[in-house]
Amino acid sequence: MFKKILIANRGEIALRVIRTCKEMGIKTVAVYSKADEESLHVRFADEAVCIGPAPSKDSYLKISSIIAAAEITNADAIHPGYGFLSENANFSRICKEHGIKFIGAGPEMIEKMGDKASAKSTMKAAKVPTVPGSDGLLESLDQTKKLAKEMGYPVMLKATAGGGGKGMRAVWKEEDLQKAYESAKQEAAASFGNDGMYMEKLIEEPRHIEIQVVGDQFGKACHLSERDCSVQRRHQKLTEETPSPFMTDELRDKMGKAAVKAAEFIKYEGAGTVEFLVDKHRNFYFMEMNTRIQVEHPITEQVIDYDLIREQILVAAGVPISGKNYTPKLHSIECRINAEDPYNDFRPSPGKITTLHAPGGHGVRLDTHVYSGYIIPPNYDSMIAKLITTAQTREEAINKMKRALDEFVIEGVKTTIPFHRQLMDEPDYISGNYTTKFMETFKMNPPVEE
Amino acid sequence: MFKKILIANRGEIALRVIRTCKEMGIKTVAVYSKADEESLHVRFADEAVCIGPAPSKDSYLKISSIIAAAEITNADAIHPGYGFLSENANFSRICKEHGIKFIGAGPEMIEKMGDKASAKSTMKAAKVPTVPGSDGLLESLDQTKKLAKEMGYPVMLKATAGGGGKGMRAVWKEEDLQKAYESAKQEAAASFGNDGMYMEKLIEEPRHIEIQVVGDQFGKACHLSERDCSVQRRHQKLTEETPSPFMTDELRDKMGKAAVKAAEFIKYEGAGTVEFLVDKHRNFYFMEMNTRIQVEHPITEQVIDYDLIREQILVAAGVPISGKNYTPKLHSIECRINAEDPYNDFRPSPGKITTLHAPGGHGVRLDTHVYSGYIIPPNYDSMIAKLITTAQTREEAINKMKRALDEFVIEGVKTTIPFHRQLMDEPDYISGNYTTKFMETFKMNPPVEE
Repeated sequence: MFKKILIANRGEIALRVIRTCKEMGIKTVAVYSKADEESLHVRFADEAVCIGPAPSKDSYLKISSIIAAAEITNADAIHPGYGFLSENANFSRICKEHGIKFIGAGPEMIEKMGDKASAKSTMKAAKVPTVPGSDGLLESLDQTKKLAKEMGYPVMLKATAGGGGKGMRAVWKEEDLQKAYESAKQEAAASFGNDGMYMEKLIEEPRHIEIQVVGDQFGKACHLSERDCSVQRRHQKLTEETPSPFMTDELRDKMGKAAVKAAEFIKYEGAGTVEFLVDKHRNFYFMEMNTRIQVEHPITEQVIDYDLIREQILVAAGVPISGKNYTPKLHSIECRINAEDPYNDFRPSPGKITTLHAPGGHGVRLDTHVYSGYIIPPNYDSMIAKLITTAQTREEAINKMKRALDEFVIEGVKTTIPFHRQLMDEPDYISGNYTTKFMETFKMNPPVEE
Repeated sequence: MFKKILIANRGEIALRVIRTCKEMGIKTVAVYSKADEESLHVRFADEAVCIGPAPSKDSYLKISSIIAAAEITNADAIHPGYGFLSENANFSRICKEHGIKFIGAGPEMIEKMGDKASAKSTMKAAKVPTVPGSDGLLESLDQTKKLAKEMGYPVMLKATAGGGGKGMRAVWKEEDLQKAYESAKQEAAASFGNDGMYMEKLIEEPRHIEIQVVGDQFGKACHLSERDCSVQRRHQKLTEETPSPFMTDELRDKMGKAAVKAAEFIKYEGAGTVEFLVDKHRNFYFMEMNTRIQVEHPITEQVIDYDLIREQILVAAGVPISGKNYTPKLHSIECRINAEDPYNDFRPSPGKITTLHAPGGHGVRLDTHVYSGYIIPPNYDSMIAKLITTAQTREEAINKMKRALDEFVIEGVKTTIPFHRQLMDEPDYISGNYTTKFMETFKMNPPVEE
């Protein structure tokens, strides 16, 4: 087993990994930027190394500094968390070259699944259903026009290096294609330094349902059932739940098998997530595979009594998995609490938290790196906490979330707590009748006066 | 179902009941003494009524004020929590007379089980094993001497109205009997206004293992397995766990059956706990039955995915129970965090909490009514939080408790956090090889310098 793990990340996920390492008796090294000196991941790690100034490119994305920190502290493994370098093939390769175990996918795997166009062709070869679209990158506007006509509008243009909604355009009729194609390409070049584009049939009334998989070093994989992440705003997930209210036992069985087939086909090692779009007829299509832990992994842990970070570490250390597939025994919901103003177009609200009171009690889990007096730096993601409730039924989990949100006090900055509180009262949320389009028509009610 | 429940209690248990009521859509009324104006149970209830000054006898024990508060607010039920009036037959009767449902045992039941001597004879009639001892109250010193000789030393003298170790004396040989008998009687009279005494054979190397039961209005009862509460200091529980490390499937089956037999024999309604002493040969003896929710109920909730407060409310509203017995699927430990100085004979340490940072993450539950800035009043019990960890195995639950205790920051008052942190490293605790005598030889290590 590893003796010391360096966590190449910040915020709640760095703390999350430290917690499991402590429970496993593994020493930890935190790395941090100057902006994160007061963060809990720094306080709770056994050692901490400052790796540079606030901008991510000078610290959390700076491979040389992170490798140096691992060498100085004699860490024998690196956990990359999510975001930052977690799906960077080069980083995975450099770790390997330095004899440091990267707790995640190998470089070839990341290359294969990180590039969305090649991921899709791999999945086609594995006979996992994919969204009809261009086989590989688009070559020209003319070819794109021809392909779109063949598959029928609406279509979706997507940047191959994309994420977070950048370089994406929905096109509903031919006359809009040229403008969308050109502006998406431009945006992709500016955001990712890569203007490669591909095209897919646009799925109407789509649900985003993903399957958690774990694969070991011996080619075996299993699935830990699904998470419904359809409540998104500009392709950013806001809340997730498991089981999906749209799921049936038959569909779970089919999607689970497809995800395991995908993982075993590529000999996937570690925890990964196979994201699918599910249409209103319960057809499902491979979207992408994330070769890392997901933000929303706790809801899976809650319903099957499983520590996914522990599993990542065990698999990386060469322990074989049981291979058993799991189905949820309970219902769990996560609300991502962001320092954003839901009354003002979710504008980021960094600054000092003057008061924090955490909810607690039966069925409530809170994963957070912030506390009373913590200053949220403006440099990073605005997520400050993940509030998770778990109960026997979906209705109980929603009711528990309502009361936990009511108890949760954060003063000094604006947060998305009021958004989630309202969401839990929305008839379409309560009925489970929501798609990825849900937020397009959602409006905040006026703030409640205290 | 009830429309509005008044909670006749304070602190974490008042908040605990409010949480479940909110989740069930039931309105809540908090009552509070002047010392508790800033408590969270007051803030989180739908309504709050001040019922008097700080001393319990003038507020939380003042039946007339509590009934008046229920009538003013139109509450249709009262939840008494634990302690205070929760096992007061008179209060239960007065609620009934006022047409307010008492969420707990009826007056006859409390009388039957609250008096320890009569509880024991009831259990003997139900053929539940009891500790050999005096059948009923001791009449004289001479009779006591004769009985003790018959059952053989060591023996234990106990006040029939007792609790918290008051009016209790262990006697190891005849020449010590007279002094022990007289001083215990005196102490009982002073503490409880009742000097009735009984005697039992003293069980050597005893473990305190209790069985959680639930009974409904239709005479049906079931058990929710055991809790091991052997780690006690002066008869006050410090930490509890389920399953008991001393338990076997066979013993659980026997003890569970005995507890259900006990509950069904007396047609017990509600959540109750049958406490047993278990000797080193795994013989078990009925000790007492608590006709209320216990402090340590959360560990049971954690291992069987059950909300015991919800169950109490449902049973009180006339809903039948399923009758299914449960066995733990996981392992759960509770540490009672008290505002006491473990380095100074556990002396109470009331005052202002200047900083509070709660632990969180996977498998961690915190039940507390305190927060940063809260002033712990000197008038009540010193328990300020219950920290509960749950995992697949006992070893994992202990490791999780260690890291949760390490994360838990409470400044401004002394707490028992360092005690629990040390306990989790004690070889006899780790091996599960502990009895109710464990704390008699326990010594705190010197404080760790930061």
